[in-house]
Amino acid sequence: MAVLRITALAGGIGGSRFLRGLLRAAPDAEVTVIGNTADDITLHGLHVSPDLDTVMYTLGGGIEESQGWGRAGETFAVAEELAAYGAEAQWFTLGDRDLATHLVRTRMLAAGYPLSAVTEALCDRWQPGVRLLPMTDDRVETHVVVTAGDDDESADAAGDARERAIHFQEWWVRLHAEVPARRIVLVGADRAKPAPGVLDAIAGADVILLPPSNPVVSIGPILAVPGIRDAVRGAAAPAIGVSPIIGGSPVRGMADAALTAIGVPTTAAGVAELFADLLDGWLVDTVDAGATAAVEAAGVRCVAVPLWMTDVDAAAAMARAALDLAEEVRAR
Amino acid sequence: MAVLRITALAGGIGGSRFLRGLLRAAPDAEVTVIGNTADDITLHGLHVSPDLDTVMYTLGGGIEESQGWGRAGETFAVAEELAAYGAEAQWFTLGDRDLATHLVRTRMLAAGYPLSAVTEALCDRWQPGVRLLPMTDDRVETHVVVTAGDDDESADAAGDARERAIHFQEWWVRLHAEVPARRIVLVGADRAKPAPGVLDAIAGADVILLPPSNPVVSIGPILAVPGIRDAVRGAAAPAIGVSPIIGGSPVRGMADAALTAIGVPTTAAGVAELFADLLDGWLVDTVDAGATAAVEAAGVRCVAVPLWMTDVDAAAAMARAALDLAEEVRAR
Repeated sequence: MAVLRITALAGGIGGSRFLRGLLRAAPDAEVTVIGNTADDITLHGLHVSPDLDTVMYTLGGGIEESQGWGRAGETFAVAEELAAYGAEAQWFTLGDRDLATHLVRTRMLAAGYPLSAVTEALCDRWQPGVRLLPMTDDRVETHVVVTAGDDDESADAAGDARERAIHFQEWWVRLHAEVPARRIVLVGADRAKPAPGVLDAIAGADVILLPPSNPVVSIGPILAVPGIRDAVRGAAAPAIGVSPIIGGSPVRGMADAALTAIGVPTTAAGVAELFADLLDGWLVDTVDAGATAAVEAAGVRCVAVPLWMTDVDAAAAMARAALDLAEEVRAR
Repeated sequence: MAVLRITALAGGIGGSRFLRGLLRAAPDAEVTVIGNTADDITLHGLHVSPDLDTVMYTLGGGIEESQGWGRAGETFAVAEELAAYGAEAQWFTLGDRDLATHLVRTRMLAAGYPLSAVTEALCDRWQPGVRLLPMTDDRVETHVVVTAGDDDESADAAGDARERAIHFQEWWVRLHAEVPARRIVLVGADRAKPAPGVLDAIAGADVILLPPSNPVVSIGPILAVPGIRDAVRGAAAPAIGVSPIIGGSPVRGMADAALTAIGVPTTAAGVAELFADLLDGWLVDTVDAGATAAVEAAGVRCVAVPLWMTDVDAAAAMARAALDLAEEVRAR
C-alpha cells in the first residue's frame, strides 16, 4: 500500500500535541504541516514565529513539556538584561535558547531567504518528522481591534469608544485576552500567497486534518491566505477536524475570547459551523455527543470520542479516530 | 580651580583598566573617552562593539574581572544553541548577557540612530562615569592581510603567496594572531568622520591621554580617522601616553604580532616613536628606564614608573603619574 499522505493545518500548542499523537498513530505516514504565521511578531529586531517553533520544538523533542511552548531547560539571562536596558515589550519574554532560533531565522530572512526556506533550515536541526511549511512567506499579522482605553496603554480622556488595533500577541500575552476584542483583522492576508508546497500538499493529500488549534487565530489565518481555503474545499481528500472546544470551553488558551470577537458561540458545533464548507468529518468530545446531530445537519459527519490530550497516547488515540473517520467518509 | 577636562583614547582591556585607575586618581575630572570601533564586527546579524563595551562594562561595574572582557556572571545558552544550529563564527562566543547589549545596539542602529547616540543610550544604564564616544559613527573595520593558506580556511593548492584579508577579530580570536600579518588595513578609515563631540573633546581638553592600549589596532584606528590625529597634534593640551609594552613584551594581548605587521619593534621606545608627532610625554615601565633617553631624543619627555596594572590602585598610580607628567610638560 502506498504511503499515507497527511496534510495538517496547525497553530501552536494544541496542534503540536495532536501532531505528536498523529506521528505515533501513523508512524509511516508522510505528514506535511501547514503552520500559522499570523502570530509572528518582531521583538528586539528578531523575527519570532511562535506557532512554527512550537510545532518544531514539540515534534523535535525540544519543548518545555509543562507549558507546551518554549524550550526545555530554558534560561532568561538575555531577557533580564533587556529589562535592565529598559527595552520594549517586556511582556513577551524571550528565553535564551529560544532566542537563538530567532537569531538564526532573522539573519536568514535578512539574507533574503523566504520564511519557508528558513523553516526548512531550522528543521534540519530539529528533525520534527514532518515537513513543516509556513502558510505563507508573506507578512500576515493578526491584529485585534479593542476599544481605546480598555487597554492601559491608550486611556482615552474623552471616554468615547475609539478603536485601537494591537498585535495579537499584545492582546493575548500582555492583556491575557481580557480586553474585549471588537474585531480580529488579518493584516496582509488578502495579499498573501501560499508558501511553496502548500497548495500541492493539500491537493496531493490522502487526508487533510484540522487539529484542535484555535479556530479564529490559528486555523482561521491559514484558511484566510487566498487559495488555501478553496484548495481544502476542493481537495479529493476528506478534511477531518478536531474540536478545540470541549463542553463549551476551550481545551486550553483563550479561544472563547477570540470566538466571541467573531460572533461564534464557544461550542464544538459552533466551531464546526465555521469550517462546514470544507469539513467532511468533525470529532467532538464525548461530553459534546449531544452536538453531533447539529453538526451532521450541516452535512459534516460527526463522531464523539475523548478529546483530552492528557498524554501522547491520548493524542494518538484522537489522531487514530480522525484517520478512522477519514476512512469512513472516504468509503461513503 | 576649574574642573580638569581629560580626554582619553582607548581600546579595550588595557585602556579600560587604566581609565578605572584614572577615575580613582582624578575623581572630580570630567573625562571623555574616545573609543576604538574598528574592532566592531557583525555576528549573527548583531552589531558587536567589543572595545566600547569593555570600557562601558569595566567602568560601569559589569565586567568579568578575571578576563577583563565580557560580563560578570555570564552564561552561554544562546551560543550553545547557535552551535547546535551550525551557525557561523563559533570562534567568537557571545555570552547571553553581553548579547542583550548587542540586541539593543543593533535595534537602535536599524532604527537610524548613529552609534554615538546608541552608545550614549547604553551608557545611560551603565553610568560609566565618563562620556564615552565612538571614534566615528561611520563603519571602519580593521582587516588583517595574511598569506592565503596560512590560515586553515583558505588553503592554496598552488602554494603561491596570494593574499587574503580577514576581519581583525578572525585573526585575533580565531587564529590567536599566530598567522603572520602581512599588513593591517583600516577599511573605511579614509572616508570616516570623527563622531560628534570627538574633535571638541580633544580641542577642549586640559590633558589628552593615550592609555596602554594596543598601538596598532586600538589607538592606531582612532588616530586614523581623518582629523583626529591632527586635532591631538594641534591641541593646546599636553598629550601623554602610557607604554603598552613592558620589557619588550605586550602587557597583555598580542600587540607584538600587530607591531611586527607594521614594522615597529615591540619596545616601549618603538611605540613612542609611532606617536612621537603628537606626544608630549611618555610613561615607560621601570624595567624600560634605559629607553627614556631614546624617547626624549625624539622630543618626548619620558618618565619610568611601574606600569603593571595589578589592581585599581596600581592603575590609579599610573594615571596619577600621567597627570603629573602632563603638569610637568605644561609648565615647561
